[in-house]
Amino acid sequence: MNIRDYGYQIGKGKTGPHNKITDVPGVRVGHCTVDHDDVHTGVTVVFPCEGTAYEQKPVAATYVLNGYGKTAGTLQVDELGCLESPIALTNTLNVGKVTDALIGYILQQEEERGIAVRSVNVLVGETNDSQISSIGKRAVEERDVLAAIADADRNDPDFAQGDVGAGRGTICCDLKGGIGSASRIIRFAGHDYTIGALVQSNFGSLENLSICGEPVGKRIQKTLREASTPDVGSIMMILGTDLPLSSRQLQRVLKRAAVGLVRTGSYMGTGSGDIVLGFSNGNLLGNCSGNDFTQLRIFPEERINRVFTPAAEAVEEAILNSMTNAHAAKKLNGETVHSLAEFLPVK
Amino acid sequence: MNIRDYGYQIGKGKTGPHNKITDVPGVRVGHCTVDHDDVHTGVTVVFPCEGTAYEQKPVAATYVLNGYGKTAGTLQVDELGCLESPIALTNTLNVGKVTDALIGYILQQEEERGIAVRSVNVLVGETNDSQISSIGKRAVEERDVLAAIADADRNDPDFAQGDVGAGRGTICCDLKGGIGSASRIIRFAGHDYTIGALVQSNFGSLENLSICGEPVGKRIQKTLREASTPDVGSIMMILGTDLPLSSRQLQRVLKRAAVGLVRTGSYMGTGSGDIVLGFSNGNLLGNCSGNDFTQLRIFPEERINRVFTPAAEAVEEAILNSMTNAHAAKKLNGETVHSLAEFLPVK
Amino acid sequence: MNIRDYGYQIGKGKTGPHNKITDVPGVRVGHCTVDHDDVHTGVTVVFPCEGTAYEQKPVAATYVLNGYGKTAGTLQVDELGCLESPIALTNTLNVGKVTDALIGYILQQEEERGIAVRSVNVLVGETNDSQISSIGKRAVEERDVLAAIADADRNDPDFAQGDVGAGRGTICCDLKGGIGSASRIIRFAGHDYTIGALVQSNFGSLENLSICGEPVGKRIQKTLREASTPDVGSIMMILGTDLPLSSRQLQRVLKRAAVGLVRTGSYMGTGSGDIVLGFSNGNLLGNCSGNDFTQLRIFPEERINRVFTPAAEAVEEAILNSMTNAHAAKKLNGETVHSLAEFLPVK
Amino acid sequence: MNIRDYGYQIGKGKTGPHNKITDVPGVRVGHCTVDHDDVHTGVTVVFPCEGTAYEQKPVAATYVLNGYGKTAGTLQVDELGCLESPIALTNTLNVGKVTDALIGYILQQEEERGIAVRSVNVLVGETNDSQISSIGKRAVEERDVLAAIADADRNDPDFAQGDVGAGRGTICCDLKGGIGSASRIIRFAGHDYTIGALVQSNFGSLENLSICGEPVGKRIQKTLREASTPDVGSIMMILGTDLPLSSRQLQRVLKRAAVGLVRTGSYMGTGSGDIVLGFSNGNLLGNCSGNDFTQLRIFPEERINRVFTPAAEAVEEAILNSMTNAHAAKKLNGETVHSLAEFLPVK
Repeated sequence: MNIRDYGYQIGKGKTGPHNKITDVPGVRVGHCTVDHDDVHTGVTVVFPCEGTAYEQKPVAATYVLNGYGKTAGTLQVDELGCLESPIALTNTLNVGKVTDALIGYILQQEEERGIAVRSVNVLVGETNDSQISSIGKRAVEERDVLAAIADADRNDPDFAQGDVGAGRGTICCDLKGGIGSASRIIRFAGHDYTIGALVQSNFGSLENLSICGEPVGKRIQKTLREASTPDVGSIMMILGTDLPLSSRQLQRVLKRAAVGLVRTGSYMGTGSGDIVLGFSNGNLLGNCSGNDFTQLRIFPEERINRVFTPAAEAVEEAILNSMTNAHAAKKLNGETVHSLAEFLPVK
Repeated sequence: MNIRDYGYQIGKGKTGPHNKITDVPGVRVGHCTVDHDDVHTGVTVVFPCEGTAYEQKPVAATYVLNGYGKTAGTLQVDELGCLESPIALTNTLNVGKVTDALIGYILQQEEERGIAVRSVNVLVGETNDSQISSIGKRAVEERDVLAAIADADRNDPDFAQGDVGAGRGTICCDLKGGIGSASRIIRFAGHDYTIGALVQSNFGSLENLSICGEPVGKRIQKTLREASTPDVGSIMMILGTDLPLSSRQLQRVLKRAAVGLVRTGSYMGTGSGDIVLGFSNGNLLGNCSGNDFTQLRIFPEERINRVFTPAAEAVEEAILNSMTNAHAAKKLNGETVHSLAEFLPVK
Repeated sequence: MNIRDYGYQIGKGKTGPHNKITDVPGVRVGHCTVDHDDVHTGVTVVFPCEGTAYEQKPVAATYVLNGYGKTAGTLQVDELGCLESPIALTNTLNVGKVTDALIGYILQQEEERGIAVRSVNVLVGETNDSQISSIGKRAVEERDVLAAIADADRNDPDFAQGDVGAGRGTICCDLKGGIGSASRIIRFAGHDYTIGALVQSNFGSLENLSICGEPVGKRIQKTLREASTPDVGSIMMILGTDLPLSSRQLQRVLKRAAVGLVRTGSYMGTGSGDIVLGFSNGNLLGNCSGNDFTQLRIFPEERINRVFTPAAEAVEEAILNSMTNAHAAKKLNGETVHSLAEFLPVK
Repeated sequence: MNIRDYGYQIGKGKTGPHNKITDVPGVRVGHCTVDHDDVHTGVTVVFPCEGTAYEQKPVAATYVLNGYGKTAGTLQVDELGCLESPIALTNTLNVGKVTDALIGYILQQEEERGIAVRSVNVLVGETNDSQISSIGKRAVEERDVLAAIADADRNDPDFAQGDVGAGRGTICCDLKGGIGSASRIIRFAGHDYTIGALVQSNFGSLENLSICGEPVGKRIQKTLREASTPDVGSIMMILGTDLPLSSRQLQRVLKRAAVGLVRTGSYMGTGSGDIVLGFSNGNLLGNCSGNDFTQLRIFPEERINRVFTPAAEAVEEAILNSMTNAHAAKKLNGETVHSLAEFLPVK
C-alpha cells in the first residue's frame, strides 16, 4: 500500500504508470534482503540506463545535505559529471564489501563484452540500521550483491518497497523505514519525460512526521503514548530522469530533494548523512568518439522550476511510500518499531 | 503584529525577550527606507558584535541554497571564516553602490580610531524588488546607507519589521514580503545563548504558503480568486548567535535555514538567490596577537541538533513575521499586493 | 617587450597571432589608467564574446585558489554556468564603484537595444595596489569604466600590457606587476581553437621568481642586495576560449591556472585572493528559446589534457608578460619598484 | 637514498630528525607489499595520533585537485572536520576490500577497549598501478591490511620509502614512483612543531620532471632516447602536523600541496585523482565531554604562510624521495620502468 492508497496526494504532478523510479526508461531496481539470526539488512541496486553504465556513462551529480555519512564514489561523479556503475545502497559498515562486489561484477560483465576494465568508480550509499540489525557483522556478502543485480535483471517495474533490500533494517520518524519510490511526468517540447525518486529512509523524529501538512506524527505519539527520539536523520535519496540535463543543472535539481525531505518533517539532524545522488540518462557521455565534440542537450534554465517541483514531490512521496510499505519490526533490544500503515485509515 | 499574535506558535523553542536577532548580545539592526516617485526600496544593516566588526572579526560562514543572486563578499568569508563588516541588504542592482558606501563608512570609522584601512571585505546581500520599485534607478545612495547605520546606532532592540528598509519593495508568496526577525534561546553548559534570524523575503507562490502545516495560501487564493504566480524564490537569510561555534559548525547550522524556508512553502524556485549568511560573536578572531595561538570554543558536535532546530524555527518565524508586519502595496503595474495580515483573524 | 623577446619560450604550444587573449574570436580588452596625485590605479575590461554578454551568455566558471579577496559576481556564475557581463578588474576598494558602473553600462546598452534589464550579474575582480596608489580614495569612477569600455570598443587585438589599467599599481615578486596576456592554439576536430589568458599580477616574493626553471629572482636579489618580502600573493587570472566546453569542464581547465602560477614561483601566500575566472564563447546559453532544449558541445574528457596544458602555459606566460611590459614605479613611501625588464638581457 | 643525498635541497626549511611524516609526534606508518605472480601492489597505513583515531578524532580536512579518483571517506571528514580512522593507501580497485578490512580492524580494536562501534568512517586513498600489477585481482586482502598495521605498530620512524606498500606498482614521470615522505619544523610561540608529508606518486610525464628548477626529465629523455608519455597524473598526498589548526585552516594548508606537486613538473593531467588528505593532532575533538564546549587552538591567520611554505616543500621533497628510493621495475608488457636514482650522480 502506497501513501496514495490512504488518500494522500503529494503535490499536483502527474505520476508515471508505476509511480516508481523504474518509470524512467532504462532504469531497473533490484533488492536482496539479508535476514537471519540477528541480521536484518540488505542491499538495493539501481541501474541507471540501458546497456552498461560503464560504457554509457549517463550524466550524474551528487549533493550533500549532511555529509555525516560514508557514501563512496562521489568524488569522481563530481569531477566528471557522469556515472559508470549501478548505484548500490546498503548498511553503513557494509560499504567496503558492497563496493568490492560491485567492482567485481563490473569487471566480469565488461570482460564478457570484451573490455578489460582497469579502473572503475562505483557509487555506494548507506544508512545505519544498527538498531534492528547486528551491523558489526557486515552481513551483506558478494553473493547478496549479485542476487540484487539478478533481481534487477528481472526488470520488474513494480519492484518491492518498504522493509526490503537496503531498507530492511531502517527506522524513519521512530516508525519502520525502508525503500520507497515515486515518479513524475514532465511534459516538455512535445515529449513526456519522467523523473523518479528512490529513497532509503532512516531519519527523523515521530513528533515531526508530517503528511501533506497534517501533524500525523503528533497524533501517533498520542496513540502510542511514547516519547519521540531525537532527529538523528539519515537518508539516501536517488533521483533519476531521462530528461536531458547537464550535470550542473542536475545538481540544482538534486538540491530540491531537500524540499521533499523537509515536507515530511525532517530537520536534517546531525546524526548521519543526508545525501542525494542523481543521474540523467537523457545525456550519455560514453558515446563520445574522442575525435570530435560530444553533443549535450540541456534544459532551458528559466523553465527549470518545471523540473524542480516534480523532483521535490517525488522525493516526498518516495519517503512516505517507504514507510507505508514497511512492516513493523523488532529492534535488537526487543522494542517494537511500528509501521506507519498501522495508524493510517484506508480512505 | 507578529505571527504569534495571530495564534501561530512556530516550534517549541523559547524565544528571546524581543523575539528578534537583536536579542543576540551585541547585535544591532538599522533600516533606511527609500520611498519617492516610483522608488520604493531601501537598505537594512546588521551589526554583528560590540565594537567594530573590522577589529573583532566574529566567526562567520555562508551557505548558498540557490546562487542565482548577486550577493557580494562571500568568497573571503568562506576562506577566512570571519566577518569584518556589518552585513547590508538592499535591492539587486544597488549592490555596487551599497558596497562602496559600506567601504567608505568602514574606512572613516576606523580612521577615527587611528587605523588606516587598506583592504576590507564587505558583505552585501540583495533581492529583486523590481515589481514594486523602479530598480534601474539604483536609488539607494551612500547617504541612505549612512542613515541605516545611524538608525542601527540608536540600538533599538525592537527594530521595525515588514515593508521597511531592504524589505520595502519585496513580494513573498504573492503577498507583501519584507524584513522579518525571530530568536530562540539555547541553554547550554549553564548559560543562555541566543540564536536570531533576520530575513529579506521575496520568494514563493501563494498556493504553497503554509503556516504550521495549514495551507493558508490556498485559502487566501480562494478568497482572492487569483491565480498563483510561479515560485521564483529569492530570500536572504541572516543567522547570528553568541553561541561559540567554529565556521564549519556555523555553516552546518546555516544549512538548516532551508528547513525553516521550506516549512513556509518554498520549493526553492530558480528565479533568484536563496542565500544564508551567518556569524557567531561567541568567537572573535580579531583578538589574536599574531604571536600565539587563538583560543576558539566549539560546540560538542553530537549535540548540535540543539542548535539546528532553533535555527530552523527562527528562520521560519522570521519569514512569517516579515509578512504579517508588511502593509499592502501597489506594484508598478498598478496591481495590489495584499498583506498576509489581511487574511489572518486575530486569535 | 614580452618574455619571448628575452629568449624565454614558455612551453611547447603554438601561440595565436598576437599571443594575447584577444586572439580568441570575439574577445576585446580595454584599459583606463587613473594617474594623478598619489593615485596610480585603473580598470581593465574584458568582453567575452561578439554581441552583448547579457544576451549571449557564454558558458563560464570560476575557481578560487585563495579566497582572501573581494571579487564580486561569482555566485551566479557558479550556479548558472554562464556570464552575462564583461569582466572588469580594478583595485580592491573600488569593486563597489566599478560594479555599479558596469551595471549602469549594461542597463543603458540593453535599453538601446530595446531590452529593459531588471537584474544583471556583473563580474568584478581586484587586487590590492595600496603600496603604489592611495587606495582609500577609490579613484576609479564611472567615467573611467566607460573609458575602458570605449577603449575595448576600438577592438585593438594588440592592447597594451604592463602598468596600465588595473595593472597600473600592482607589484609582483617585489618587481612591478601589471596586466599581461598570452594565448595558445588548440587544434581539434579539424579546426583551430584558441585559449587566452589575461592576468592582473600582484603576488609573490622576489626570491622565488622563476622563469623556465631559472632562479631569476635570486639572481636579481643579489644584484639589488635587497631582502625579499613575504609572498602575500594576489592574482586575478582570466581564461577565455572559443573551444566549446561545459562549465564543469571549464572549471577543470581553470584549476590548471595554478600550474602556470606556481611555475613562476608562487607559493599561493595567504595575503590576498588568487582567483580564476573563465569563459567559453564556443557555447552560448542565450540562444535558448525556452521551448526546446539547448544544444551544447563538450570536449571529449579523456583528451582534455590538450586543453589543460595550453591553459597552464598561457597563464605562466601572461604573468611574465605582465612584468616585462611594466615600467619601474615609485611606492607611496618613496621606494622604487623595479621592472623585471631591467634585469633581463635581450637575447 | 633520498633526494638530499644527491645534493638537491628542497626549499629553505629545517627538516625533522628523520625527514619523514613520522617526525610528527604520534604518527606511525606501516607497509605491506603484495608481490607474487603478476601482482606487484600493496597497502600503506598512516596512523594520525597516539591512542586510537576513533577515540581521539584529530582535526582533519581534504582537498581535491583532481577528483578523477576513488578515494573513500572524504564526505564525513569534510562535514565534521575530523578523522576517526587511520588513513590507508592502496591500488584503485582494492579500495573496497581495504575499506572493509579497516572497518573490521577498528571494530575489533575498539571492542578490546570495551567500545561497541556501530558506525565508523574510514579514509582510503588509491592510485592506479595497473601497468605493473594485475589490478583486476584486487590482491590486497584483509591479512595484508593487518600486516601493514602490525608494521606500523613497530613504530619505526625510519619507515621504508619507494616501491613498497601502496607504492609497489606506481609510475611517476615515466620512472618508478612509490611512497615518499619528508618533514619540516615550524617554530612558533616558543615551540617546535612538525609538518610531514607522505605521498603515493603515480603521475606525470618524463619531459616535465623538474628538480629544483633543473629540467632533469628532459636530460633523462635524451639518455633514454624514449618518448615521454602523456601526463595522466594521479597522486595521493597526506599532510600531517601537530601544529594546532582548525579544519578550515588545515584545508588552506592542503591547497599548498599543489605548489609542491607542480614544482616537480606536474600539469595535473586528467588521468586520475590528485587528492590531498590532512590531519592535525594538535587539536583532538574526541576529548569533548558533550556537556561543555571544546577548546580549539588555531593559528594566527596572518602568519599562516609560515605553515604554507613548509607544507609545499615537504610535498615536493616527498615526491622526489618516492622516486629516488624506488627500484627499477618491469611493466606487465615487459617494458622497463627505470629508477630516477639511475640518472642522478651522487654528489
